Amino acid sequence: MTHTVVSSHKKEVIIGFDKPFCVIGERINPTGRKKLAAEMAAGDYSTVEADALAQVAAGANMLDVNAGIPLADEPAILAETIKLVQSLVEVPLSIDSSIVEALERGLEVYQGKALVNSVTGEEERLESVLPLIKKYGAAVVAISNDETGISEDPDVRFEVAKKIVHHAADYGIPASDVVVDPLVMPIGALGQAGVAAFRLIRRLREELGVNTTCGASNISFGLPNRHALNAHFLAMAASNGMTSAIMNPLHPEEMTGIMAANVLNGVDTNCARWLRQFREPPAAGSQEEARRERRRRRG
Amino acid sequence: MTHTVVSSHKKEVIIGFDKPFCVIGERINPTGRKKLAAEMAAGDYSTVEADALAQVAAGANMLDVNAGIPLADEPAILAETIKLVQSLVEVPLSIDSSIVEALERGLEVYQGKALVNSVTGEEERLESVLPLIKKYGAAVVAISNDETGISEDPDVRFEVAKKIVHHAADYGIPASDVVVDPLVMPIGALGQAGVAAFRLIRRLREELGVNTTCGASNISFGLPNRHALNAHFLAMAASNGMTSAIMNPLHPEEMTGIMAANVLNGVDTNCARWLRQFREPPAAGSQEEARRERRRRRG
Repeated sequence: MTHTVVSSHKKEVIIGFDKPFCVIGERINPTGRKKLAAEMAAGDYSTVEADALAQVAAGANMLDVNAGIPLADEPAILAETIKLVQSLVEVPLSIDSSIVEALERGLEVYQGKALVNSVTGEEERLESVLPLIKKYGAAVVAISNDETGISEDPDVRFEVAKKIVHHAADYGIPASDVVVDPLVMPIGALGQAGVAAFRLIRRLREELGVNTTCGASNISFGLPNRHALNAHFLAMAASNGMTSAIMNPLHPEEMTGIMAANVLNGVDTNCARWLRQFREPPAAGSQEEARRERRRRRG
Repeated sequence: MTHTVVSSHKKEVIIGFDKPFCVIGERINPTGRKKLAAEMAAGDYSTVEADALAQVAAGANMLDVNAGIPLADEPAILAETIKLVQSLVEVPLSIDSSIVEALERGLEVYQGKALVNSVTGEEERLESVLPLIKKYGAAVVAISNDETGISEDPDVRFEVAKKIVHHAADYGIPASDVVVDPLVMPIGALGQAGVAAFRLIRRLREELGVNTTCGASNISFGLPNRHALNAHFLAMAASNGMTSAIMNPLHPEEMTGIMAANVLNGVDTNCARWLRQFREPPAAGSQEEARRERRRRRG
């Protein structure tokens, strides 16, 4: 059973087929969030703080941290953000950047075993990111595209993932520390995007034995009732072997989908999480009775 | 590609891996519905009529018809109900009884190719139901239990299903006319009920090439927020190859799960059904604009 173990200074999280689905909160990311980008560039981390706390309260098992702000000093801001978030919450972090120097600065300040987001199958990226993963003993998200772009054929994407896993092994990084992102396309544009993702996730699990993750909301791009589509996509992907996703834990529909998938995959022991979330509170009558009972005992 | 073709006098429905999930409405069934049982026994079919119309309006692709009322003349009532429902709606029916004589009376009056619900792996049941299926050219639901009861082991249930398919072949009934019910257990009691069902559904698809169905709501028995669990169970089962379910189409959460699964499985062409259901109506402003535009053109 493949276990990807990540940790903070205080907490360990195991991503695996026999574990509850790992929700990686996506909110700390200035891409497409102008206000947040301006704040972070100006050294104001109030939204970052609020987002970190809210996502963990909503059930995120990890947080992704990205500081991709045009023209800003991304390595410095990313390191600052990681230090701050680690002082606020206990969950492990995913260090997210397209700039290798930013990843390194993030890894330098990170306490624990981080997940690095990401490496691709492009030679240059492999040769610059994998040595960092090895040096810092981190785990890494492997995105299944390469110099030729993103293939629509899931079997080509499988081969790219396999290449990355083999390259990682050359650097002494075990397959259990590589979490593959099969790349989910918008189903409104590509009708077979769902089955392609499911097929690829299943092959990655059965043939490569690796954990998987994805940016889940991409599947529903451009369609109405996105939350319902995302929720069922996550459950179906989990049923095919997907073990984590980079997603917004503040959306209750998606989180219900994850919790249902955990129950149905037999990884929510005794349905404890489901019952905690959804069991009806005792009726008013029985609360009143309980109060009376306490008074009787005291009196 | 396995196609189970069923029909009424007016409409054909194909159950198959490359077709939208087939929703078989479960409401016309007096089991556990005392008022309906009393009405049907007294020859009052008003609830049956309302249930037939409402289920088709809600998106049922077929209707299950059961007349199992203790001490009543079930064969006569079932035949009467089938004639009535066929006069009201165009969708094909599933003729549902544990009494072989009732199945035969139902088949006698049915116009089209019915689905018969059900045969089990018990010898006596096989020898009495399969000849009827052959005689009337029907399709049949095969329940994967036998004289020894219902095994918790999905591999034992697979062998029972295989036995039924082979027996059917001996009677000249093709595997495409056998729709296997893998028997879904309550996950609150059996934590591995979900993965057992998914594994069995996948084997039935990959190794026997048969369509599958189930009573979906059983999975969530005894748990809170059942509709969400059922909806995600249906989507996950569909992702593993399940092609139909006997369910209540009047529950919007479950129907949303089915529609999402159809989109994500690539069988809702151009997401047409999803868009019809969920596309936002044009905003008030643009409706006003459209009216003005019409006026301009007329004027």
